[in-house]
Amino acid sequence: MSVTAAKGFTAAGIAAGIKENGNPDLALVVNNGPRRAAAGVFTSNRVKAAPVLWSEQVLKSGQLSAVVLNSGGANACTGPKGFQDTHATAEKAAEVLGCGAGEVAVCSTGLIGVLLPMDKLLPGVATAAAALSEHGGEKAAIAIKTTDTVHKTSVVTRDGWTVGGMAKGAGMLAPGLATMLVVLTTDADLDSATLDKALRDATKVTFDRVDSDGCMSTNDTVLLLASGAAGVTPGYDEFAEAVRAVCDDLGQQLIRDAEGASKDIKVEVINAATEDDAVEVGRSIARNNLLKCAIHGEDPNWGRVLSAIGTTSAAFEPDRLNVAINGVWVCRDGGVGEDRDLVDMRYREVHIVADLAAGEQTATIWTNDLTADYVHENSAYSS
Amino acid sequence: MSVTAAKGFTAAGIAAGIKENGNPDLALVVNNGPRRAAAGVFTSNRVKAAPVLWSEQVLKSGQLSAVVLNSGGANACTGPKGFQDTHATAEKAAEVLGCGAGEVAVCSTGLIGVLLPMDKLLPGVATAAAALSEHGGEKAAIAIKTTDTVHKTSVVTRDGWTVGGMAKGAGMLAPGLATMLVVLTTDADLDSATLDKALRDATKVTFDRVDSDGCMSTNDTVLLLASGAAGVTPGYDEFAEAVRAVCDDLGQQLIRDAEGASKDIKVEVINAATEDDAVEVGRSIARNNLLKCAIHGEDPNWGRVLSAIGTTSAAFEPDRLNVAINGVWVCRDGGVGEDRDLVDMRYREVHIVADLAAGEQTATIWTNDLTADYVHENSAYSS
Repeated sequence: MSVTAAKGFTAAGIAAGIKENGNPDLALVVNNGPRRAAAGVFTSNRVKAAPVLWSEQVLKSGQLSAVVLNSGGANACTGPKGFQDTHATAEKAAEVLGCGAGEVAVCSTGLIGVLLPMDKLLPGVATAAAALSEHGGEKAAIAIKTTDTVHKTSVVTRDGWTVGGMAKGAGMLAPGLATMLVVLTTDADLDSATLDKALRDATKVTFDRVDSDGCMSTNDTVLLLASGAAGVTPGYDEFAEAVRAVCDDLGQQLIRDAEGASKDIKVEVINAATEDDAVEVGRSIARNNLLKCAIHGEDPNWGRVLSAIGTTSAAFEPDRLNVAINGVWVCRDGGVGEDRDLVDMRYREVHIVADLAAGEQTATIWTNDLTADYVHENSAYSS
Repeated sequence: MSVTAAKGFTAAGIAAGIKENGNPDLALVVNNGPRRAAAGVFTSNRVKAAPVLWSEQVLKSGQLSAVVLNSGGANACTGPKGFQDTHATAEKAAEVLGCGAGEVAVCSTGLIGVLLPMDKLLPGVATAAAALSEHGGEKAAIAIKTTDTVHKTSVVTRDGWTVGGMAKGAGMLAPGLATMLVVLTTDADLDSATLDKALRDATKVTFDRVDSDGCMSTNDTVLLLASGAAGVTPGYDEFAEAVRAVCDDLGQQLIRDAEGASKDIKVEVINAATEDDAVEVGRSIARNNLLKCAIHGEDPNWGRVLSAIGTTSAAFEPDRLNVAINGVWVCRDGGVGEDRDLVDMRYREVHIVADLAAGEQTATIWTNDLTADYVHENSAYSS
């Protein structure tokens, strides 16, 4: 059901011809109100794609009527012409939808450094507008795929209101945010300030902790739109929990579909002095190529976990560190623990626990193994 | 000629049986004086192997008579027993050489988290001592190999004095230092303070800028021993230049032999506001898995260079960035530059220039591409 699970939204996904292979490549999501509140979170990469610069700007009003998303090109590092193209896309959507361009966010994904084929994209916006439907959420989710093998959607329904969404992302997955486009919708009746807070609280512990390959994109965008069509205003905590649940689910789907991955690795850091320490250690472990190769080889090589922890500034004593892999404490007090042959690593999910023995804080980072297929997917052609 | 190129040094390399395959695994380097000045630089990883903890301690005197090095086991994360084993190794060397254990540095390399077979290592020290020779430098260099495909040595001879050395290292190569053991010797007549300064000045711009896979070891050690046997005291600048030349040569050899690599990538950052900025940007580019895959695929994917630059805190404006790959300025002013089809990437060495247009400082980081062979070497068995 995706972005049209919540009342008040229509969506469409079509093939505009941006992708040379003819696959769907243009999605449109429209908020039909009565409210048009919105919030967004964007990549912290300082090299930002034109659509990110545009959407950050239009979101300052806290209002969005529509989102245009294209795959087949990131429109990043494309200079003033790239920004003009994003502006023209918003203008075209505004024209066919009868709203202002300043109420239209734009998201793009694909290869960096290539201009979009505007002669195909602009007619595509009109085609998509004509195809808008209350059942269009799934087609929209399909149209934003790049190297994704499956489309990703999630829905949470509470007492009279709903949060739903779609995501794309399979490579260049790293925090700040993960590399992805996400559109969330809700029919709850909330203002943009509330949406903004709930979205930031949710992304901080979900998408920001998905780190498939340590690479941060120029295009990451997560949008949350509220139509108010349910006529219900939930309490903040209840709403924030629903948004977090949808973000968490979509984040897990990103990890499970990461390029070339054969393992999903949950890195849980416990007993840290601070949450920041826990996140720093988790990221360091998640980004260690040698460990990621070892996990691919089903080798519980805890020495690589310790060497990754050792590069951080977190509070810990080396001879108090403990590491468990799939429930077996292979490292105790910084040295050899239980027999590593006891570790069963046959399944896709691998659970690493790093115990810093320095406090009571915790954080979980999700990552993937490093595989020959990842190398192939990212070396055989430009993406 | 390796560590015995300089007068006053003997060395040996033997098979002690630490490696199960019977390959050479124990090296001994002895300074026969008249001087026994020494300096060392060690990993900045906070999880340090027992031999690193030991050698840091003994080097506080600024004096070394000998270095025992073993491959076949890192003696890292091995607790109090591991430290006792390192101590026993130094005691054994002291006994057979007739010096104090506090004048013996110990270096180990291999798998983390496994105790060394002391019943083989200690007799091996005696065997190595009996084999010491003024021509033993090459055998010593061979005995410290792990996944290295070739042994690495370098010699610079100046007016009446020499600096020579050996290195091992092929994986877990990242700054602070690169993952490696290096022993340098000189017959110049210099005190330990001068050696220390020259060594730190050299490693900062050589080994510290070799970043093959972003992973920092628990065992990195670089030692510089001076015998004074040449009876010559060169000026500081002249000596420092020679040490830097040997370190630079050995660092290049590490990159050329990095595990699974098919490309050696020179990342040159120019026009940075500060040298620190240049190093930060260089490291970010060098550690970007997606870029490293693209280079493997001979794809001049400059968008991945820009997205890596964008994650740093260096001073730059996105729309003033320029990137050249093998001499072709494929990115100009943050956007599309010269035709990427002009880039010839058929050869092993790839040269990336990132122009930050923010100042006059520069730094060069060396790295490798990311290949299926790297994944295989680091997933098929524990190392």
